[in-house]
Amino acid sequence: KIHRIASIPGDGIGVDVTAEARKVLDRAAERHGFGLEWTEFDWSCERYTRTGSMMPPDGIERLSAFDGILLGAVGFPGVPDHVSLWGLLIPVRRAFAQYVNLRPVRLLPGVESPLAGRTAEELEMVIVRENSEGEYSAIGGRHNAGQPGEFAIQESVFTRVGVERVVRFAFELAGERSGRVCSATKSNGLIHSMPFWDEIFAEVAAGYPDIYSEQCHVDALAARMVQHPERLDVVVGSNLFGDVLSDLAAAVTGGLGLAPSGNVNPPGDHPSMFEAVHGSAPDIAGKGIANPVAQVLAGAMMLEHLGEAEAARAVDRAVSDVLAERSAVTPDLGGSGTTAALGSAIAAALR
Amino acid sequence: KIHRIASIPGDGIGVDVTAEARKVLDRAAERHGFGLEWTEFDWSCERYTRTGSMMPPDGIERLSAFDGILLGAVGFPGVPDHVSLWGLLIPVRRAFAQYVNLRPVRLLPGVESPLAGRTAEELEMVIVRENSEGEYSAIGGRHNAGQPGEFAIQESVFTRVGVERVVRFAFELAGERSGRVCSATKSNGLIHSMPFWDEIFAEVAAGYPDIYSEQCHVDALAARMVQHPERLDVVVGSNLFGDVLSDLAAAVTGGLGLAPSGNVNPPGDHPSMFEAVHGSAPDIAGKGIANPVAQVLAGAMMLEHLGEAEAARAVDRAVSDVLAERSAVTPDLGGSGTTAALGSAIAAALR
Ligand SMILES: CC(C)[C@H](C(=O)O)[C@@H](O)C(=O)O
Ligand SMILES: CC(C)[C@H](C(=O)O)[C@@H](O)C(=O)O
Repeated sequence: KIHRIASIPGDGIGVDVTAEARKVLDRAAERHGFGLEWTEFDWSCERYTRTGSMMPPDGIERLSAFDGILLGAVGFPGVPDHVSLWGLLIPVRRAFAQYVNLRPVRLLPGVESPLAGRTAEELEMVIVRENSEGEYSAIGGRHNAGQPGEFAIQESVFTRVGVERVVRFAFELAGERSGRVCSATKSNGLIHSMPFWDEIFAEVAAGYPDIYSEQCHVDALAARMVQHPERLDVVVGSNLFGDVLSDLAAAVTGGLGLAPSGNVNPPGDHPSMFEAVHGSAPDIAGKGIANPVAQVLAGAMMLEHLGEAEAARAVDRAVSDVLAERSAVTPDLGGSGTTAALGSAIAAALR
Repeated sequence: KIHRIASIPGDGIGVDVTAEARKVLDRAAERHGFGLEWTEFDWSCERYTRTGSMMPPDGIERLSAFDGILLGAVGFPGVPDHVSLWGLLIPVRRAFAQYVNLRPVRLLPGVESPLAGRTAEELEMVIVRENSEGEYSAIGGRHNAGQPGEFAIQESVFTRVGVERVVRFAFELAGERSGRVCSATKSNGLIHSMPFWDEIFAEVAAGYPDIYSEQCHVDALAARMVQHPERLDVVVGSNLFGDVLSDLAAAVTGGLGLAPSGNVNPPGDHPSMFEAVHGSAPDIAGKGIANPVAQVLAGAMMLEHLGEAEAARAVDRAVSDVLAERSAVTPDLGGSGTTAALGSAIAAALR
């Protein structure tokens, strides 16, 4: 079996870590008897500076032919973030209805949590982030530009369809994990959008009597992630809240260099896209010090999504083994290994 | 000198902790030779259930005669949060142009941070939260209610005046503290409101060449609060971001039971309002286990605001002394003291 993969390394360390992920995934494919056929795209801020656009006009169409997409990171000094992201990452998420952004975190072997005295069992959760609507909206603008009375408006848009499908996904996932799901809202402050989310969450919850569900204000939930992470497992939130909470969850479990994510189209009508949670970090790009683990784990999520569960588990295991052993780890984890050496060590550890 | 104070204990533990704050402040006034003349208002969810409104129609007018307002907390099962808050807390913040919500946190003596190996020096910061506009907006609504095509819209509104004044406040404050200010935005996702904030932040920064300023994405900033809190001092953010980051900062420094806040009208045209960051916690109300420290420290912030800096410092010191000694602390801090006993101990410790 051959899986056709689009690779978009992007900018900065996106390029560094994607090379390592590919190395590991190719090795896993070889070991587990399937093929990965890679097509690489140079879509990036670098391309934008050259040509004026992040991807070609038929970019989405070209990607639609693939079984999966592995994205590095986009972002580059001089190119405003809203240009780079709304020119590539966000259109892909939306065009392919990748309405779930799945962000599992756990404390990996050999990694230290900044929290005192926490075990790996206490630090294991998954953020289910709404990925297609909500606060990330192009609707809005400015009035009275340049005048003292200037103001900006930004509209969040939440649809019943959009909220229901991601909440339902979270409940299904909770059923396969701990049986607990917590929804992050802020209905006391944002009185139109968030009570709507709460209502739909309660409706969906009624269909899952065996799942323990709770609704939590996002501010209190952020505090809880630090004070009582052991009480959290599946956390579901809007595009913005899921973004903030997943960075926080990554920090709590030892760093952004380790957190993978999947932009998933659950029905499978379109390709899903996998990427590290971290950004392009241009300041350390090309220096060989970026940690490739997040991107390798994103690759494992992709394998799982492609139906190669055994290979996915093998990659996860190889990562854990190499981290536990510590000799190859990168500077962010207190080692002196290079990006490539850590990637190679993981590939070599695949059994 | 007599200061006229409006006290609004509100609901739940708001009532418990406000009684203790008043006890401590009265003692401080006595010691430092000024008077506090208290007027208590029963505005609360309890009142709402009885009368249909959180406060009387002339509530704002009545408060306007006071030098300061001490608020407990509002919120009660059965009364939707958006009713209770938009019927009292939020109208007061806006009517009195309390456009700065000031939330200092630090690691107090005898208190443990959930972060491993952090010193008190590393855990000291202040969140300057925009308090009058932004994401907390009544503009928005629902369309196609009850239909499959139902959706909700929530509009964030940022004005030049509103952003500039709170950012300027943060720079002034940084000048009195570390000389560092960090602004929390999310301009890669929220492409209308947040770049506007960034622009104004950069304009204001240009007028403070001696202050080190940086702009940070809110997701990365949340991670940094856990990973590198020592690199943060003054953090300025929108109404929503300031809310989330201040709860997180409180958690990082040992808990919400200890974090005070001031809803400040910097020009002094209107009364300012002081309150603990925590909510009404109805589940533990009246049980004598709520920690009154946050509200006592909110009272100290009020004294400072009223020009009684010496008394404010004395209250801060008394809190530190009693916490360090530990014999009176409440269950949230691992002790078995009651709310009233801790309040009395702080009052007694005033020198
Ligand atoms: C109760 C709620 C509306 C309030 C807020 O978000 O402003 C609270 O969380 C706070 O931080 O003061
Ligand atoms: C780069 C940015 C737009 C993006 C997001 O917020 O979606 C990133 O932070 C992420 O979490 O994937």
